[in-house]
Amino acid sequence: MEEIKIGMLGLGTVGSGVVRIMNDHQEKISQITGRRLKIIKTAVRHLDAHSAQEVPGMQITDDVHAVLHDPEIQIVVEVMGTIDQAKAYIIDALKHGKHVVTANKDLIAQYGSELVQIAQENKVDLFYEASVAGGIPILRTIVNSFAADQVEDVKGIVNGTTNYILTQMVAKGVSYADALKSAQALGFAESDPTNDVKGIDAAYKMIILTQFAYGTNVKMSDVTVEGIDEIDLADINQAKSMGYTMKLVGESQEIAGKLAVSVEPMLVPKDHPLATIQNENNAVLVKGAAVGTTMFYGPGAGEMPTANSVLSDIIAVTKNIVLGTTGNTFNGYRQKAALATPDMIESAYYLALRMPDIPGQLLRLTDILTKADTSVNQVIQTETDGEHARVVVVTHKISLAQLQTIRDQINRNSDIDLISCYKVLEAQA
Amino acid sequence: MEEIKIGMLGLGTVGSGVVRIMNDHQEKISQITGRRLKIIKTAVRHLDAHSAQEVPGMQITDDVHAVLHDPEIQIVVEVMGTIDQAKAYIIDALKHGKHVVTANKDLIAQYGSELVQIAQENKVDLFYEASVAGGIPILRTIVNSFAADQVEDVKGIVNGTTNYILTQMVAKGVSYADALKSAQALGFAESDPTNDVKGIDAAYKMIILTQFAYGTNVKMSDVTVEGIDEIDLADINQAKSMGYTMKLVGESQEIAGKLAVSVEPMLVPKDHPLATIQNENNAVLVKGAAVGTTMFYGPGAGEMPTANSVLSDIIAVTKNIVLGTTGNTFNGYRQKAALATPDMIESAYYLALRMPDIPGQLLRLTDILTKADTSVNQVIQTETDGEHARVVVVTHKISLAQLQTIRDQINRNSDIDLISCYKVLEAQA
Repeated sequence: MEEIKIGMLGLGTVGSGVVRIMNDHQEKISQITGRRLKIIKTAVRHLDAHSAQEVPGMQITDDVHAVLHDPEIQIVVEVMGTIDQAKAYIIDALKHGKHVVTANKDLIAQYGSELVQIAQENKVDLFYEASVAGGIPILRTIVNSFAADQVEDVKGIVNGTTNYILTQMVAKGVSYADALKSAQALGFAESDPTNDVKGIDAAYKMIILTQFAYGTNVKMSDVTVEGIDEIDLADINQAKSMGYTMKLVGESQEIAGKLAVSVEPMLVPKDHPLATIQNENNAVLVKGAAVGTTMFYGPGAGEMPTANSVLSDIIAVTKNIVLGTTGNTFNGYRQKAALATPDMIESAYYLALRMPDIPGQLLRLTDILTKADTSVNQVIQTETDGEHARVVVVTHKISLAQLQTIRDQINRNSDIDLISCYKVLEAQA
Repeated sequence: MEEIKIGMLGLGTVGSGVVRIMNDHQEKISQITGRRLKIIKTAVRHLDAHSAQEVPGMQITDDVHAVLHDPEIQIVVEVMGTIDQAKAYIIDALKHGKHVVTANKDLIAQYGSELVQIAQENKVDLFYEASVAGGIPILRTIVNSFAADQVEDVKGIVNGTTNYILTQMVAKGVSYADALKSAQALGFAESDPTNDVKGIDAAYKMIILTQFAYGTNVKMSDVTVEGIDEIDLADINQAKSMGYTMKLVGESQEIAGKLAVSVEPMLVPKDHPLATIQNENNAVLVKGAAVGTTMFYGPGAGEMPTANSVLSDIIAVTKNIVLGTTGNTFNGYRQKAALATPDMIESAYYLALRMPDIPGQLLRLTDILTKADTSVNQVIQTETDGEHARVVVVTHKISLAQLQTIRDQINRNSDIDLISCYKVLEAQA
């Protein structure tokens, strides 16, 4: 059987997983592709860190170019991470006619379109299924199964770290700080969790999902991003008592031909499919005009799920090599869409306010909301220290512009504070 | 732009949906495939039933062979239903070099491997994504994303009619007969619901899923099938009070290299992902050795979701035509596996018994279970009419062989009746 020779950059958790799956399932892979896949060289940063690792037939080197320029290697797998360095290596590989598979979401979200173009110019494949939602094959599913449909909305829990932290906060009533500590102890959060807890990682994934769902490239600055690091347990408990859970939801929606992309904590009704996604799991809900609402659920990260997605990409490249059909872009859908304006983006909102605990206050609040043309679903006064009351309002659907009017009105009243403000997700039909 | 001409057999709900999506999303489809897709002829049984239907550029005919033998037509879409007739037409089309897309699960489950072979001999494509779980792209996902992985278990709610009926029984406490009536009134059940409520439709889908997950063909007689038409509300209510819901679950599992395929009502823990699938929706849970547990959820039937899956197949064929890569099978994975024996297939069970309401009965029951080496999780005596008591037992995991021993023991005791017996699904980690 003919062999396809593969080179790899990086031999950390994902890289080791790729080696393992390729060994364990060699026979099935060969049966499906008609080729024997073989990783012949892997480049690592520090050779001595890998002195104990031995993979028969695979050379471990610290010379990246020995991988990138090896004429025998047809596919380069990048699982080393970093942005600038990985970008340079991938471009080098593409220009040397290698097909590239990467799991690097930061890189793809920022420089995806540039890399896609270089791949096309060099008539090679560039796949990155593992860059979004680890084990969930969401990108290929959008490409293949929503091709004839019009995607109207993509909502996802696409960051396992924050979902783990929020699940702990909701289930055990622990604070953000404590939940983060336990997540770090269990390896679900990194020692510097900034990218995850600030929503940046999720935003990268939403940028890639937006490209696949709508064919449109958006930049990080186009995405409204809010993290989970300032969530107060009081709001989580309040939300719980009202039948909601709290999730960090990425959303990419099409509104009258324009796009709105955001990542922010939201109140999710308990019987909503996204409410049931626990701990480090991920889920992506895709709404198509024809198909309706579908959901794809699975492990969002981890050695083996991510490695499996990398393998799916390697197999896709291999099939293309066999069929002579390499060089077609992962996602062939291209469409230019502008961003939606604040008056177009609508949602119900949860607002927690601190107000003087004296008569007539509810009237003042009603007045503020009325000025913003906002009707109210629920008002609850939850606690008072005698001087100040905590009041929670859930609005009906209003626009971001209306929300801004409410914020402005509140700011004008020095004795009313907006403590927190979250979107409330609509119940699923 | 070059045109791909399509012929269709059948213009019912799904056929009309295909026409509609193709018109509505023509531009996007053309952008992705580089071709203009056009249904030029559709064959129907009774011309006069379609006299009001007018689709510009599409001829409606009652001459099937005008479609099958039209040299201009490259793709034939079969959405007419039936088994023998559809089979003959599809074979005719394949032999005339047409690519075929079908939504016909009964046909594929029974004659899939024969049709696949004919397609291969004639170097044409045969796709049938819509045959399983309507709008959920589960077949293509297994092909593409589990290629490098080893599927260990597939569990699915793959019949919308029965899930609708069971959802109503659980939520509203109505009887099977009443729930069926309301399902029929709403169009979720056919006037003759046999195929659905007896589990046959779900079994067809499990046969197809088994072929994709394990590469193995199983026959209907290899599948353990039990419907929902004999489910007693008393058991549903009992299950509810114990933290379970009732679902018709299709399962295809690999046990030590052998396969067990079944469709039967099961008690599903309330926080299990399958428990949240309501009404006519479908979901398929796939467990892979590397990736872990993933779930794919969406509308299981309906005009537009099914039509969208048909369109995905048409686009897949079109891409293959453009790339010159037609003639490869939908699922290239082939593996021969024997069926697991009753001693290998394990589950926890819910048993409802009718026993004399006199002292010493629990001892007798314990004796029976002990003889089958069965330990018990819960025993509940729920009601008594003074003479007879209703006793519910939930066992720990036992094999089908052990269950048979329990049944035999009970049969030997003329005053103990086994009223009902259901598998209990394990909680999801």
